[in-house]
Amino acid sequence: MRDPDRRTFLKTTLAIGAATGLSALAAPTTRNGPRSVTAQSVKDLTAPSLDVVRVGLIGVGERGVGFVHHFCNIEGATVTAICDTDQEVLDRATGVVAELGQPAPKEYTGDDYAYRGLLEQRDVDIVVISTPWRWHSIMSVETMESGKHAFVEVPAVTTVEEAWQLVDTAERTQMHCMMLENVCYGRDEMMVLNMVRHGLFGELLHGEAAYIHELRWQMKEIERKTGSWRTPWHTRRNGNLYPTHGLGPIAQYMGINREDRFEYMNSMSSPARGRAAYARREFPADHPRNQLEYITGDINTSMIKTQMGRTIMVQYDTTTPRPYSRHNLIQGTNGVFAGFPNRIALEQGGTGSFHEWDYDMTEWRAEYEHPLWKTSRELAEKHGGHGGMDFLMCWRIIDCLRNGEPLDQNVYDAAAWSVISPISADSVAEQGSSKPIPDFTRGS
Amino acid sequence: MRDPDRRTFLKTTLAIGAATGLSALAAPTTRNGPRSVTAQSVKDLTAPSLDVVRVGLIGVGERGVGFVHHFCNIEGATVTAICDTDQEVLDRATGVVAELGQPAPKEYTGDDYAYRGLLEQRDVDIVVISTPWRWHSIMSVETMESGKHAFVEVPAVTTVEEAWQLVDTAERTQMHCMMLENVCYGRDEMMVLNMVRHGLFGELLHGEAAYIHELRWQMKEIERKTGSWRTPWHTRRNGNLYPTHGLGPIAQYMGINREDRFEYMNSMSSPARGRAAYARREFPADHPRNQLEYITGDINTSMIKTQMGRTIMVQYDTTTPRPYSRHNLIQGTNGVFAGFPNRIALEQGGTGSFHEWDYDMTEWRAEYEHPLWKTSRELAEKHGGHGGMDFLMCWRIIDCLRNGEPLDQNVYDAAAWSVISPISADSVAEQGSSKPIPDFTRGS
Repeated sequence: MRDPDRRTFLKTTLAIGAATGLSALAAPTTRNGPRSVTAQSVKDLTAPSLDVVRVGLIGVGERGVGFVHHFCNIEGATVTAICDTDQEVLDRATGVVAELGQPAPKEYTGDDYAYRGLLEQRDVDIVVISTPWRWHSIMSVETMESGKHAFVEVPAVTTVEEAWQLVDTAERTQMHCMMLENVCYGRDEMMVLNMVRHGLFGELLHGEAAYIHELRWQMKEIERKTGSWRTPWHTRRNGNLYPTHGLGPIAQYMGINREDRFEYMNSMSSPARGRAAYARREFPADHPRNQLEYITGDINTSMIKTQMGRTIMVQYDTTTPRPYSRHNLIQGTNGVFAGFPNRIALEQGGTGSFHEWDYDMTEWRAEYEHPLWKTSRELAEKHGGHGGMDFLMCWRIIDCLRNGEPLDQNVYDAAAWSVISPISADSVAEQGSSKPIPDFTRGS
Repeated sequence: MRDPDRRTFLKTTLAIGAATGLSALAAPTTRNGPRSVTAQSVKDLTAPSLDVVRVGLIGVGERGVGFVHHFCNIEGATVTAICDTDQEVLDRATGVVAELGQPAPKEYTGDDYAYRGLLEQRDVDIVVISTPWRWHSIMSVETMESGKHAFVEVPAVTTVEEAWQLVDTAERTQMHCMMLENVCYGRDEMMVLNMVRHGLFGELLHGEAAYIHELRWQMKEIERKTGSWRTPWHTRRNGNLYPTHGLGPIAQYMGINREDRFEYMNSMSSPARGRAAYARREFPADHPRNQLEYITGDINTSMIKTQMGRTIMVQYDTTTPRPYSRHNLIQGTNGVFAGFPNRIALEQGGTGSFHEWDYDMTEWRAEYEHPLWKTSRELAEKHGGHGGMDFLMCWRIIDCLRNGEPLDQNVYDAAAWSVISPISADSVAEQGSSKPIPDFTRGS
């Protein structure tokens, strides 16, 4: 997908509004009020169960092609449609389907709106969206409008207004809209979720999340690949550009949008130095990457307060040279777990004193491995995708849809986890002032 | 020292104001304006060099008795006066002096104001104050007014107004007022300071500091000892009660109050659960510790923004069961150092890829051990005090005073590092809103 310039983007958004009559587009930016009378909560939405889930994919580049693999390898799923604006990328994806001995999916290519053909195809139940960030909410909204379930890459939305559009559309159409937050299916994260549910940490007090992942090298991707459209975000927004990988699991530990919710947040960014320095070092002076003004602080730190009073610290840093981390820290009245590396310390029920970290996960793993990982580990690791979490997420989606069960993440999660990005930018711009986070569930 | 109740405290403060004519007491809470014409900056204050530094100590309980040891063991220092309201504690301290074969110091005891006798003693050059937090600024101000240099335990002040009183008094009297932030003399911290000064991390961007130290057990100290007066603070203020141990070293790395300064901050606290739960578990239902309402959030997380745009994350947690940490993280454009455990990752000049932490400090230590630790390690470790940092701090103070050199920490540092506590509480009380941090240097 090409990155639309702002003018095209606005024109498109308005066009969609006109075409579909989306009331959301004319609505104010934040609305905590009641939903319209014709809509209803999708909190525990179930859809009629499907024997076979027919999967359409929009965007099968670096990220999407993995999903083609996974859905082809899951019993009860079949890939019936693929769309990409890049013919080469499209060919690679259909090649994967052929290699795996599956029937050829219908292909869609051409301009940025070729995906609309896919949305009209009858034998598509769910649409998997792995396009540049700007397209996520547009395509998700149109997917639901077309009577299909939307499964959208992170972040689901880039503004608070888009988040409300997603929520409004899901509630009106009663279609699923799940963000593909794969880290929630990570082996460690699911073990910790299981520990939390067993009350190992006592009452939860505080969490820490991060996306610390040096990705300056993506700046070398000038066309087509991720760096081509992700780099310009560093010239547009000073805040946390990518909050959900670290935050999703912490939100699940805390039962956000279930027994608790995000209430307000604040944010601060360090100076923005690394990307300009990298461009100077790696590209000629007249290179396009040396013509950009990088404004995203190299490391952003935000704090979220929940309605139950808990705190979450969330960091973002894809620029400075340092080891990868998502923090994955959860702290309660009885102790703490932290990741990168995994370690645990408990007052009651620990292996030793809480004054020392226990880095040995062997026994903890044996006792608290999540049932999904217990039964599916071999399969997950065989098919892989970030250590198996991607495959397991896809497997779980298909399983829920075939059994008519609610999904693990709903549209309120997609909205709440994603808006940390635009709200962090608002806070940074106002000297770290505190900003409310909308209750997308409208109190339910 | 007994903890004065609020009424006594106010009465005392007013009495001091009346007695000394301190204009500060009538002044507004924050004043970034110019100092009065008769005062001048004490940024690089030097005092006439002293052959022998005559030390008086107020408060020689758990903390102060260590200083008696250290000053008795330093050439060029002599302990000439000791004050404590507790006769037993006083006897133990004078016993230490006798054991070390030094002349007996004059003793002061009696009511809370017995220290005023010490301040009148002629052969005292510096006064070391290790009393409960409430007394720190009162005694420091009176010490300077009496023509002696003040060396005060952390935190130097507990309110912004007290901080201005300290600064005003130091500027008017041209006396030293140094906070005894011992961690700034830690072996690791001084190594990192040396690394920073050698430019190892490139341009500094971000730091992380903490005082994560489980101290619920202090609640069992009902009388005299630290827990007797520190516990009630957990019923008075919801914020970071003790910011300076983690923050001091980070501030020194960043040159705070030199080339940079704190500009604004925000703060959030988790729920307060651990102290009430501990009281229920450890004391009978009718015990005084079970009659208190503990309001300090179990973990507080604050963020500070500096004038140069850098960010500092500061945490406080003396309640939840988890391993000790001060974080000690400093991150620049070329890489990062973090403590607990010590680890480093650099883009240029590292031992490997910056994608992996290097936990082995051997070579780093060999190259970047701070000169003070290189020459004094044996002595420091022999005399000890938190691994030697306490002794080294005392040694360094005496060395500076004997040579008429500026101290490593000035009154502006004492003020800026300490006010993070009251300002964090203000921010917590206003949903994590952003609060300005006064420039105590008044722009110098």
